[in-house]
Amino acid sequence: MKIELQKVLPADIEKRSFEIITEELGDRKIPEELAPIVKRVIHTSADFDYYDNMKFSENVVKNIAQTIRNGACIVTDTQMAKSGINKKLLETFGGEVFCFMSDEDVAEKAKENGTTRATASIDKASLLERPVIFAIGNAPTALVRIFELYSEEQIKPEAVIGVPVGFVNVVESKNLIMSSDMPYIVAAGRKGGSNVAAAICNAILYMMRDGLL
Amino acid sequence: MKIELQKVLPADIEKRSFEIITEELGDRKIPEELAPIVKRVIHTSADFDYYDNMKFSENVVKNIAQTIRNGACIVTDTQMAKSGINKKLLETFGGEVFCFMSDEDVAEKAKENGTTRATASIDKASLLERPVIFAIGNAPTALVRIFELYSEEQIKPEAVIGVPVGFVNVVESKNLIMSSDMPYIVAAGRKGGSNVAAAICNAILYMMRDGLL
Repeated sequence: MKIELQKVLPADIEKRSFEIITEELGDRKIPEELAPIVKRVIHTSADFDYYDNMKFSENVVKNIAQTIRNGACIVTDTQMAKSGINKKLLETFGGEVFCFMSDEDVAEKAKENGTTRATASIDKASLLERPVIFAIGNAPTALVRIFELYSEEQIKPEAVIGVPVGFVNVVESKNLIMSSDMPYIVAAGRKGGSNVAAAICNAILYMMRDGLL
Repeated sequence: MKIELQKVLPADIEKRSFEIITEELGDRKIPEELAPIVKRVIHTSADFDYYDNMKFSENVVKNIAQTIRNGACIVTDTQMAKSGINKKLLETFGGEVFCFMSDEDVAEKAKENGTTRATASIDKASLLERPVIFAIGNAPTALVRIFELYSEEQIKPEAVIGVPVGFVNVVESKNLIMSSDMPYIVAAGRKGGSNVAAAICNAILYMMRDGLL
């Protein structure tokens, strides 16, 4: 079987991918400051549903960039999301990524309290003494806990990237975040994932690196 | 805003999710030995397109389980996929996961040869002296390189899990794998990802743990 491959230099594959995404979006326009994020999510999923799904609170992208420059860290709910975020680039701005999901004390607390580990990992994150951006790609219970702690004035996240994927309380947990006055980037509906959470973080970091933010 | 959450115990969330997926698949039936894999991919993406996309060579699932029990390792093309695979469970069968993408020598070779790092990482994997299952969730160039090395009789993978995502040579690279006589699990079309690669590996590992394979 003869299969013809497109001749694209390694360094140009991503550029060409974004061109194809832009072509296929056609008349579906995205505000300039949001386009790199929506397109990177489509790039990471090959799923154009994200054109409709991605929801942003006002000025959230600019504010995330600002807070990263001011030393904010990113807290994820999976090792996969942590693994996918460009940590070297984040470090150049003084940031770092935390994921407490595999911590022994988190497992113990979850068992003790009959919660998910995600819930317990947010409780642990609430003790961080620095500005926090949450990037939640998996666990709706993490979003619910963020909402509860915010409502109780125990945390005040710089932003919530709320893109868990799934079937149980996923839509509801995202609606909770969007109903609050926390700054958010949310993939409405069931879709999302650790890859989507990482793609959103990276899109913002690349815009910062390239002087667009 | 009042948002009603479903009351589901932490331990039951995954079970309930799989029930919903089964309900929504309705009349779309999947062969028994493949259903846990297809459903776990839908679970990880909330994308029912995978019902149509997932392609399996004959007996591939049974054979992957067998080769894992015989000491096969898994080689991924991203740290994210490696991060998502249940390594503790894999270890109970004597397996481990490798990802060479961040290795210095891989970066150097790629630069030297004008290839992607993914290509160079497959070259490095070809030197492993044990049975190998490739789990490729990102780089079509990794699949192309696997195909080339197999054609040159330099490698003989136990199986290729070929689920890169994207727009440049992704469809073509998957067609290459399916045109060969290597055992494969492929997500046809543009969709896939590191999360999908990890989900496929985990679905097989859970079937092995549960005595289904």
